[in-house]
Amino acid sequence: MIHRERKKVLLVSAHPEPTSLTRQLAEQSAETLAASGCEVLHSDLYGMGWKAVFDGNDFPERLNPERLSLIDESGHAFARKSQTDDVEEEQRKLGEADALILHFPLWWFGMPAILKGWIERVWAFGLAYGFRGAGNAHRYGEGGFAGKRALLAVSVGGPAVDYSPRGINGPLDQLLFPVTHGTLFYPGMQVLPTYAVYGAARLDDAGVAAARAGWAERVRRLFEDEPIPFRSQNGGDYPDRHVLAPTVAPGQEGLGAHVALPSRVFACDGLG
Amino acid sequence: MIHRERKKVLLVSAHPEPTSLTRQLAEQSAETLAASGCEVLHSDLYGMGWKAVFDGNDFPERLNPERLSLIDESGHAFARKSQTDDVEEEQRKLGEADALILHFPLWWFGMPAILKGWIERVWAFGLAYGFRGAGNAHRYGEGGFAGKRALLAVSVGGPAVDYSPRGINGPLDQLLFPVTHGTLFYPGMQVLPTYAVYGAARLDDAGVAAARAGWAERVRRLFEDEPIPFRSQNGGDYPDRHVLAPTVAPGQEGLGAHVALPSRVFACDGLG
Repeated sequence: MIHRERKKVLLVSAHPEPTSLTRQLAEQSAETLAASGCEVLHSDLYGMGWKAVFDGNDFPERLNPERLSLIDESGHAFARKSQTDDVEEEQRKLGEADALILHFPLWWFGMPAILKGWIERVWAFGLAYGFRGAGNAHRYGEGGFAGKRALLAVSVGGPAVDYSPRGINGPLDQLLFPVTHGTLFYPGMQVLPTYAVYGAARLDDAGVAAARAGWAERVRRLFEDEPIPFRSQNGGDYPDRHVLAPTVAPGQEGLGAHVALPSRVFACDGLG
Repeated sequence: MIHRERKKVLLVSAHPEPTSLTRQLAEQSAETLAASGCEVLHSDLYGMGWKAVFDGNDFPERLNPERLSLIDESGHAFARKSQTDDVEEEQRKLGEADALILHFPLWWFGMPAILKGWIERVWAFGLAYGFRGAGNAHRYGEGGFAGKRALLAVSVGGPAVDYSPRGINGPLDQLLFPVTHGTLFYPGMQVLPTYAVYGAARLDDAGVAAARAGWAERVRRLFEDEPIPFRSQNGGDYPDRHVLAPTVAPGQEGLGAHVALPSRVFACDGLG
């Protein structure tokens, strides 16, 4: 008899209002995942009173009490298991999870500070960067979070047209590249195309219902959908680990060159 | 006799270690500006214990105590002058300033959470967005911070090559577009090309001295250098205020299309 392991999914949500679309989509995640037989872990950052600021208090046993190097102290605390309890707990949850879903409103074209601070504190040196003391040898496609999937569910105040390929804000996939590529793919996660709900501030009940239904569909396919084909550092496209080989996306510059498909395929899914 | 007004510059810095390169560059700003006859205001966010998290506590006199809409409460509190004292004080400093310099280390390809939270709380509705109750009529080139200049001084851990046009992290100007374009140009500031110091974690004394000298030169030209030529919303390039006219940067998509020059001119200045 084959034992099929139950998948675990960590939801991290970052909105202070329990009835916000962000929080409703997180509830939808929990419902849909439970119905699919997954185990759900949830870090509601506002509800937990998460400490957003990365500082010396994160290192109760300092390597160097004179001068604070965040990289050195992070590496030391992670290796010595002397991190703070809240960080240890988030790393434990993430370590168990097969997938991570980040639920947040787009504020000034990025994550809310409380979620950025969750990343800064939980993404320890030796784990999420500087993996196994090997500098940059393992990053972008491998590393401490390899084998996990990641997906963003983003509530966006403005209309979809402002985020279209020639829209005034810039395309959402490029604005979120520091998160999808630089934060999630960097330590090895496979990142799915972002789910965005536009005009989120002014949705009526029918709009919320449609957003939830569209999202539920994406959650059901969490372990089946194709990830964004970001190029892995060690797959051959970056022979020196720093720059694309001249034969890869020849002549192309900028963020889109790091996706192994025409840029339109990388466009965000969603409603608006 | 002509009275030439003394310029004021607000420095906002975000690093917990007083001897960090970030903080040293902020000291350099203060020295160079004072020597140039400018008045310097400084918000050292870690030193001030700045509250990073944007939440219901920002609104002591709620418009709606039942459900927290951050946009509605922000607009209400700004109009009624019922914001918290720390936010009022930062808006007062920024209001007086002719230029804003943000000093920060690049963490996960963006601003530290404490600085992101400074933006979220200080960039009020009615001031930095929804200016004068006119929706999106005034944004990208005009708005509550029109007439001010802005400049980023960024300490970057990795090497410059990783941020080059085909470098594995993506070009720094594109990674910072949500800050330069989406956060600073949006409410009307003229944004200068970013000053970046690469390999910042491992600089020796000579490297620090070179970084400070290069930065001092940029600070001296703060009111002379040409800003990044971001396209203004109401200058004709976006006839419907949402999408570039077909005749503007024809066929071009993505972040670079919003800069009125070849993308290489927009590249970041700096050392590495």
